[in-house]
Amino acid sequence: MWIVVCYDVNTETPKGRKRLRRVAQVCKNYGQRVQKSVFECQVNEMKFEELRRKLLREIVKEEDNLRLYRLTEPRDDHVETYGLSRTIFFEEPLIV
Amino acid sequence: MWIVVCYDVNTETPKGRKRLRRVAQVCKNYGQRVQKSVFECQVNEMKFEELRRKLLREIVKEEDNLRLYRLTEPRDDHVETYGLSRTIFFEEPLIV
Repeated sequence: MWIVVCYDVNTETPKGRKRLRRVAQVCKNYGQRVQKSVFECQVNEMKFEELRRKLLREIVKEEDNLRLYRLTEPRDDHVETYGLSRTIFFEEPLIV
Repeated sequence: MWIVVCYDVNTETPKGRKRLRRVAQVCKNYGQRVQKSVFECQVNEMKFEELRRKLLREIVKEEDNLRLYRLTEPRDDHVETYGLSRTIFFEEPLIV
């Protein structure tokens, strides 16, 4: 299934900025960064539970917000994208 | 239907920051801000087309990214939220 992960981490403090990096790092292991704070992840139920658990370990519930949207397949019928694809900026060097 | 609007506007320039404000302003007329750059909008097809058209008028495709996710109903089966609800901070004073 496709999960869209959106997060809003309070980066007013160094600790917050560290959390932001850690949240992004978790997401990177499960999907594709599509915006600064948005990832699209294709996962099965088990991986989804793992992803959720790891994210919840990183965020501070009193300061941050995390939203997980479950898209109905086929994904392409439920996503419209416009403008710059930032993927290339966020990603590690591509291996073709 | 429920549309999740996620945007990534390049705010390195004053023009970009202005765009960011304008994009948020458009979204505010169609739904609820749930994160800094994420809105959830309950709209019909006509309103959705209007929203899309207005957003595309604001963003600069070479600099910004816009994603529109269409959620399958019931919405609550497809959204998980954790942590702080920023809604209250983003919204105008609530009228009960």
